[in-house]
Amino acid sequence: MPLTVVLAQINLKVGDLTGNAQRITAAAVEARERLGADAILFPELALTGYPPEDLLLRSDFLDQCEATLAELQATLHGIHLILGYPRRRDGVLLNAAGVFYNGERVAEYYKALLPNYSVFDEKRYFEPGGTPCVVTIKGVAVALTICEDIWFREPALRAAAAGAELLLNLNASPFHTGKSPEREELLRKRALESGLDIAYVNLVGGQDELVFDGGSLVMGRDGRLCQRGPAFAEALIPVQFGPQGPLPGAVAAHCEEVEAVYRALLLGVRDYARKNGFQGAVLGLSGGIDSAVTLALAVAALGAEQVEVVLMPSRHTAEMSNQDAIAEAEALGVRHTTLPIEPAFATLLQMLQPLFAGLPPDVTEENLQARCRGILLMAISNKQGRILLTTGNKSEMAVGYATLYGDMAGGFAPLKDVPKLLVYRLAAYMNREREIIPQRVIERPPSAELAPDQRDSDSLPPYSLLDPILERYIEQDQGVAEIIAAGFDPATVARIIALVDRNEYKRRQAPPGVKITRRAFGRDRRYPLTNGFSATL
Amino acid sequence: MPLTVVLAQINLKVGDLTGNAQRITAAAVEARERLGADAILFPELALTGYPPEDLLLRSDFLDQCEATLAELQATLHGIHLILGYPRRRDGVLLNAAGVFYNGERVAEYYKALLPNYSVFDEKRYFEPGGTPCVVTIKGVAVALTICEDIWFREPALRAAAAGAELLLNLNASPFHTGKSPEREELLRKRALESGLDIAYVNLVGGQDELVFDGGSLVMGRDGRLCQRGPAFAEALIPVQFGPQGPLPGAVAAHCEEVEAVYRALLLGVRDYARKNGFQGAVLGLSGGIDSAVTLALAVAALGAEQVEVVLMPSRHTAEMSNQDAIAEAEALGVRHTTLPIEPAFATLLQMLQPLFAGLPPDVTEENLQARCRGILLMAISNKQGRILLTTGNKSEMAVGYATLYGDMAGGFAPLKDVPKLLVYRLAAYMNREREIIPQRVIERPPSAELAPDQRDSDSLPPYSLLDPILERYIEQDQGVAEIIAAGFDPATVARIIALVDRNEYKRRQAPPGVKITRRAFGRDRRYPLTNGFSATL
Repeated sequence: MPLTVVLAQINLKVGDLTGNAQRITAAAVEARERLGADAILFPELALTGYPPEDLLLRSDFLDQCEATLAELQATLHGIHLILGYPRRRDGVLLNAAGVFYNGERVAEYYKALLPNYSVFDEKRYFEPGGTPCVVTIKGVAVALTICEDIWFREPALRAAAAGAELLLNLNASPFHTGKSPEREELLRKRALESGLDIAYVNLVGGQDELVFDGGSLVMGRDGRLCQRGPAFAEALIPVQFGPQGPLPGAVAAHCEEVEAVYRALLLGVRDYARKNGFQGAVLGLSGGIDSAVTLALAVAALGAEQVEVVLMPSRHTAEMSNQDAIAEAEALGVRHTTLPIEPAFATLLQMLQPLFAGLPPDVTEENLQARCRGILLMAISNKQGRILLTTGNKSEMAVGYATLYGDMAGGFAPLKDVPKLLVYRLAAYMNREREIIPQRVIERPPSAELAPDQRDSDSLPPYSLLDPILERYIEQDQGVAEIIAAGFDPATVARIIALVDRNEYKRRQAPPGVKITRRAFGRDRRYPLTNGFSATL
Repeated sequence: MPLTVVLAQINLKVGDLTGNAQRITAAAVEARERLGADAILFPELALTGYPPEDLLLRSDFLDQCEATLAELQATLHGIHLILGYPRRRDGVLLNAAGVFYNGERVAEYYKALLPNYSVFDEKRYFEPGGTPCVVTIKGVAVALTICEDIWFREPALRAAAAGAELLLNLNASPFHTGKSPEREELLRKRALESGLDIAYVNLVGGQDELVFDGGSLVMGRDGRLCQRGPAFAEALIPVQFGPQGPLPGAVAAHCEEVEAVYRALLLGVRDYARKNGFQGAVLGLSGGIDSAVTLALAVAALGAEQVEVVLMPSRHTAEMSNQDAIAEAEALGVRHTTLPIEPAFATLLQMLQPLFAGLPPDVTEENLQARCRGILLMAISNKQGRILLTTGNKSEMAVGYATLYGDMAGGFAPLKDVPKLLVYRLAAYMNREREIIPQRVIERPPSAELAPDQRDSDSLPPYSLLDPILERYIEQDQGVAEIIAAGFDPATVARIIALVDRNEYKRRQAPPGVKITRRAFGRDRRYPLTNGFSATL
């Protein structure tokens, strides 16, 4: 009889100990009753959700963790329960994984390698462990490691040296583009060099700026991918380990890049709204591509009846924009209202006239229009209890082509980490079956419509130049000289980078949005506001 | 001839390598020429300013650091130059302090203990060092340590074991209330247990949410405080070390608590505005105590002629409030303008009427008023290039008694970390010589004036109860049971803590403000937005 382990790729909620315990219990009961599992493997810190951040500094939180874990331990019998939780021991906190069986804790492992880069702050909370932990389950010598441990050689080699045959790795590994194939290659290498079969279980779901993409998998010690679960969806994945290692099972294919981004955004929006108790969403629809894509995401995530859109044309809005916006709403069956901003804009201009008399119009008047829209949308959001979605993309956030408290006002920014060129690719993907984003919206030159005949290209280089420069500067930390050496115009590079640097203060007050690239704005990129460094010297 | 070391307590700017090199050079030349110094000691990471954050991940930044340091090394002769900088070595980054003399690097030390708690993220960037570094300067065996190193026993003991007599500690130690006496006690303990004389140099100046308060000092190995420089001000402090240890010098007294907070806020506001190139500030004056204290701070920091205030009364504003606001502006000689918000508010209500018909007024209409003010103030800020200061205090930020994009709109929030009761104490302190904040403003019951006859006490407990509950929950991480056990009403505690938890999303989009307590909102307190933990279960 082979050993059956269920990989519990489930969606948990940070801090919701009671809810998470219920989700863990339900999965364990199903694994035992329906799937005949000997063991069930949950993600890293499954009890708390990931990342619990500074909740880990609260002793009342850790007390409740211990009480909840004790109850799980006492309640769930007849299956090996393997899950992650924070563990206080000898005056320090450890990132732990425990094996529980019939009311006993039979083994416990502490994470050796604590990530403290990118979005991770684990050294803020935890001390490292690392002593191998091997336990025999149904005749198989099983070792545990946690997430980061598998990205380096030593922990798996130590587990093998301690006599393990099968390595169970508990993860909370957030999505970025290209990570799924990277994980597969990594696990293949790790399996081959350690001679261990490896089962890798990953969390799924959105948590603030992170989306965990699942894709749990099993890699044989011979480097054969034996099984992979779905991406971006919950799954209980039963895996059988016989005398020759893991038996073959279903292998879900990697998502193509744009599809993966689409599904990450969908899950991120849905979970942010759902886990924070919003009934629905509202957003401003301009007739431009960003708000069209944001609307389509919101509808896919929450349902058309839960989404409301507002058209807020100004004296600078082309009639074509209104027509396209209405076409978008109608294609998706979404309620739309039109609130021209002219009355508010005119009133505010008149109120400010005594102070502004004799001064030429400048960005102030452009910002005023964006802020009239922000104030109307926030009023609707407040009155209806809907979350306001902002529509800005990463390229705009990077160069500050956005108005603080205007189009940046809102609770969640779905496209915050999506560069403009990728927004176009998303639009094409969304139109793959039927046209939900009018072709004209995709083809028109982009404009903020805050001044007469304004176009993005008046003040920015074309996105086909802007996006690669931004990627090199923000995601790859390339300096000016390096970017220029790659063939970009020196003056353009200098101007773009100066814009990025100068607009850090806007990003600091921006709403959260889903990380989909290797480096997102937010926790992932921690720049000073007061910053005298001139990369363009 | 005793050894003369100048403690260079100077104000540097993060990232401004060229400017910092000029400041370092000017101080070194003055120390050599005017003060006859043998050595000059600068703060931790003086070259980059502190904290440089993710600039440290850029190789172009580190290249410029090396070039700038090489130039300092080559240029400054005739004095031992001791300063901190980031150091690449063997593929890792170290937080280094070097001793340079006549063009040579004669010694280099790497920080052993890397703080990764509170506002600090040093393990994100650096690997630890710690090998003692002893160098003889004018016959005295001198060792170096860096900031956190002095908060623990080992580094000083290792320096003593390696033969040092005098320990030079380079710091970038941010202010919070009570820290100055704490540092003195710590250094006394460290000197006595290691048998070393200790010279402690600290940075001074504001950097985003941090203020470095100076107060550099010299502690004799017998636990005698020999010298202390001023708080919150630049100083070159010459210290003489004879055969019996440090010679006695001037000892600046600790600032009393409210004075220290006042000076921290002043420096924080001044440096944020100055280092970010703002010519002046604008703020809304309500007639309440928070805006009165913010105005007085702005005037003290930037000068009356650089500050502009706007009164924006509504249908709910008491006439008394306008009178008091004008009295405040006039007492300080500040230009004031009155812009009643009624036209904008009425227009917006009318525009929204089709959507809101039949729905009762709620917080939406209150927020609309605050946002009318925000939009007017931001227009003035944009048009005039002045920074908009927000006026909210920590108690309000904690319970969400503030409107996102309304009174929270702005570039800097001077009172963000100042609890309401401390705002009153600041007002009394500011009035110590003459009344700049009208007594009536201090004595009136606080009100947001967003609804008829509204008072803070309608929806919040008195601040004399609220502030201690908030301090226990936020600064001390106490749980509900612990706070109740200290004698607070259970229902009140539960309600307040639920408000704090529920309003994390507002704080995430708040402007920066000066940290003055042990735990400020911002980098210092990293809570999830999506958070199912109920501390009040």
